[in-house]
Amino acid sequence: MRATLIYGAGDVRVEDVPDPKIQQPTDAVVRVLRACVCGSDLWPYGSRPATEKGDRIGHEFLGVVEDVGAEVSGLKGGDLVVAPFVWADNTCDFCAEGLHTSCRHGGQWARNGVDGGQGEAVRVPQAQGTLVTLPVAEDSALLPSLLTLSDVFCTGHHGAVASRVRPGRSVTVIGDGAVGLSAVLAAKRLGAERIILMGRHTDRTDLGRDFGATDVVSERGEEGIERVRELTRGDGTHAVVECVGTRQSLETSLGVVRDGGVVSRLGVSQYTEVPMGFDTLMRNITLTGGAAPARAYIEELLPDILDGRIEPGRVFDRTVGLEQVPDGYRAMAEREALKVFIRP
Amino acid sequence: MRATLIYGAGDVRVEDVPDPKIQQPTDAVVRVLRACVCGSDLWPYGSRPATEKGDRIGHEFLGVVEDVGAEVSGLKGGDLVVAPFVWADNTCDFCAEGLHTSCRHGGQWARNGVDGGQGEAVRVPQAQGTLVTLPVAEDSALLPSLLTLSDVFCTGHHGAVASRVRPGRSVTVIGDGAVGLSAVLAAKRLGAERIILMGRHTDRTDLGRDFGATDVVSERGEEGIERVRELTRGDGTHAVVECVGTRQSLETSLGVVRDGGVVSRLGVSQYTEVPMGFDTLMRNITLTGGAAPARAYIEELLPDILDGRIEPGRVFDRTVGLEQVPDGYRAMAEREALKVFIRP
Repeated sequence: MRATLIYGAGDVRVEDVPDPKIQQPTDAVVRVLRACVCGSDLWPYGSRPATEKGDRIGHEFLGVVEDVGAEVSGLKGGDLVVAPFVWADNTCDFCAEGLHTSCRHGGQWARNGVDGGQGEAVRVPQAQGTLVTLPVAEDSALLPSLLTLSDVFCTGHHGAVASRVRPGRSVTVIGDGAVGLSAVLAAKRLGAERIILMGRHTDRTDLGRDFGATDVVSERGEEGIERVRELTRGDGTHAVVECVGTRQSLETSLGVVRDGGVVSRLGVSQYTEVPMGFDTLMRNITLTGGAAPARAYIEELLPDILDGRIEPGRVFDRTVGLEQVPDGYRAMAEREALKVFIRP
Repeated sequence: MRATLIYGAGDVRVEDVPDPKIQQPTDAVVRVLRACVCGSDLWPYGSRPATEKGDRIGHEFLGVVEDVGAEVSGLKGGDLVVAPFVWADNTCDFCAEGLHTSCRHGGQWARNGVDGGQGEAVRVPQAQGTLVTLPVAEDSALLPSLLTLSDVFCTGHHGAVASRVRPGRSVTVIGDGAVGLSAVLAAKRLGAERIILMGRHTDRTDLGRDFGATDVVSERGEEGIERVRELTRGDGTHAVVECVGTRQSLETSLGVVRDGGVVSRLGVSQYTEVPMGFDTLMRNITLTGGAAPARAYIEELLPDILDGRIEPGRVFDRTVGLEQVPDGYRAMAEREALKVFIRP
C-alpha cells in the first residue's frame, strides 16, 4: 500500500510500504477513508534532521474496519470508525480517569512499528479501546467534521474544558490555526459569554467569528495584552486557551488571564521554562491543559456533529489525494491552507 | 502602643507607634489578643535591605473590637474576631468568586499606612468584609487553633482544595513547616487516602503523622522523587502541595506528581521560571495554587475547630510576649521553633 513518510525538514514522500496485518489479537486493520495534516506535523516538517530512512507520519484518520483480531469485540468488518490521535485500551486506571493519553497500554501512531494515519490503511493496536464506530455511510457529508474528533476538535474542547469554560465565563483563545478555531467553537458550545480570538489572518478569524468569537484582536505581545485588557475592564479573561506553543504566546496568555483564572495549553511547547514567579502566585493563576485525551470526549461531542449543531470540519479548506500529501504539507507550512484534508 | 517593625535582615524591633484610630467609616479598631510569626515573614527577615526607617510587619491576628466606623454593621465593641491575612470588602466580584486576595478594595497588612498584625492593636480597613466573629471567650483554649484561620491553616486548606484533594486521592506535601503540616491536616480532613509528607525534621514530621500523614520521605531532590515513586507504583500522587517556594522544591513537585495530576503552590516563590516544557504538556500536569483567600474558607473550617475535630493550633510550639517578638523571629529562622505564638 501507499503511505506518507517524512525524511527531514520539508521532505515528505508518499511511498510503497507493507500492507498492515493483524499482529496482536487486540489489533484491527482499518482502510483509511479520510485523513488530514495536523499543525503539530509542521514542527518536524520545519525542523526534522534529514535521515536516509524515513518515518511514518500522521495521526488523524477515519476509515472502514477490514479485519479484527481474535480478542476484539464490538467491531466487525465494514464498520466505519474514527481513531483518536493516541491509541489506548480504554480500560486502565488512567483511561478510567479520562486521561487516555497516559494509557498504560497505549501509544502514539507512527512510532515503534505502528502505522501512521496518512496512508491507505492502518494496523490499529488496542482496537477495541481505541476505535469509535460512526453511524454514517462512507459517502456522508459529515466525514470532515467527524474526522475532527480524531484530534483537532477534541483538542480545542480539551482546552476549553481544562480552562473551565462555562456559561457566563470569558475566554481568550490565542492562535487562529485549526486548533484555535476549534477551541473557539468548543468554548461557544460550552456557553462562554465572551470569546476573544487573538489572530491576524482575516480569513481565519472570519471563520472564528462564525464559530462564536465575539471579538478579534490582531495585535501581538504587549500590544495584544493591552487590547484584551481594554476589552475586559482591565481584568483579562477567566480562561485562556493557548494554541500556538511559543514562549511569546505563553507570555501573552499569562498577560491576558484574569486573577484566579486558568491558562490551558494546547500548542506543542517550543519552550522549556514558563515565567510563573511571584506575580502569578499572588494572582492565583492556574496553568493546565496538554495533549488532549480525544477518546474521552468523542461520545460526548459526536451527537452535536451528527445533528448538525456544530460543523468543526469547516477548518478544512483544502483537499488532496494521497499522492498530493507533500504539497499539502507545503501549503500548510506556507499558510496557503489552514488545514489539509486527505482522501486516499 | 507597641508594635513590631522590621529594619533589615535579622533586625526586628518592638517600638512605640501611634495608637490606631478610625480613619474611614469602613474601619474598625481591634485590640490584638493573639498574633504570630509567619514562615513568609522569614523571607524579609533573611534578606531585607537595611533602612533607617522600619516597616510594620505581621499579618495574622485575632482580637477584640474596640471601635467601629459609621458604615460598619454586624460588628460591635467587645466582639472577638479573627482577621484573614489580606483585608477585603467581601462584596466585589473577585470576593464573590472566593478570591479575596484579589479584592478590588482590599490590600495587605503592614503596607501603605495600614497597621501590621504584630502589635497591640490594629486599624482594620473594610472591617465588615474582613473580620469574622468567633463565638468564644477571651480566655478560650481554642485561641491558637482559631488564630490559624488567619493564614496558616486556611493556606494549607487552599493548597489541598486547589490540588483537588478528595476521598481516594493521594497527595504529596512538600515541606514540614507550619504550612506543610497544615496542608497535611487539611488533606486528611478532605478525605485523602494517602498523604506523603516530605520533610527531614523528625519533630515536625511526627506532628505531620499525628495530623494524618501516612508516609514520611526525608530524602530530597532526585532521591526524594524516586522514593515517592516507589511508594506509588512508580506513578506519583494525584496531588502535590508545594510548601517551600524554592526551585528545587518545585522540581520535586513536578517529579512526584502523577500524570493528569495537580501541583498546588503555597510557598512564596523564590524562582521566576518554572520548568514546564513538553514533558509536563504531554502528561497534562496542572500548576495552580497561590496566596490563599483565607476569608473564603473561615466559615467552612470554623465549626471543625470549635467542635474539636481538628486542632491546627498544634503548629505553635513557642509562645512569646510582644517584647520578645525579635527573639521569636530568631528562633524560627534558626529552626528552634516551628511557629511562634504571640501574646501581646
